Amino acid sequence: MIDDIWVSILGIIAAALVTSSFIPQIVKGYRTKHLDDVSYWLMITICIGMSLWIGYGIIKNDFVIIGANISTIILNMILVVMKFRYSK
Amino acid sequence: MIDDIWVSILGIIAAALVTSSFIPQIVKGYRTKHLDDVSYWLMITICIGMSLWIGYGIIKNDFVIIGANISTIILNMILVVMKFRYSK
Repeated sequence: MIDDIWVSILGIIAAALVTSSFIPQIVKGYRTKHLDDVSYWLMITICIGMSLWIGYGIIKNDFVIIGANISTIILNMILVVMKFRYSK
Repeated sequence: MIDDIWVSILGIIAAALVTSSFIPQIVKGYRTKHLDDVSYWLMITICIGMSLWIGYGIIKNDFVIIGANISTIILNMILVVMKFRYSK
């Protein structure tokens, strides 16, 4: 039987990796000032999906799910604003 | 008390939205034949993170988590191959 604490740690690392994956995209966009090839729909659909995940996390009282999804939404909103500004 | 079935449905819709968010990015990339602005690290880190989620899903016996993450990894691998081919 695998200890619950290790399963939680696995979940936290998984959530942190998925969340942090948007950081290199932000850095790349900031450096090149170019986000034309990134789809608005990618970012918007992720934000809507992750808002539902937050609801799921609140009902299940799961702070890993809530925290990870709030962070990813914030990073995605930064990307949306950057793309909007660079596209002008 | 909210029924468990509705919570599961919320989770399934949330997972489906996050997974399907990569479809417009694939369509946009296919149309423009251009994915230069999309970061390899975005896709690679998401794949690693979601592989860990699959492990978490297997341990927790949660087929929504397993299915959603396998689908998202497949879509991300398609994007990686497209970006590699278009960058030649």
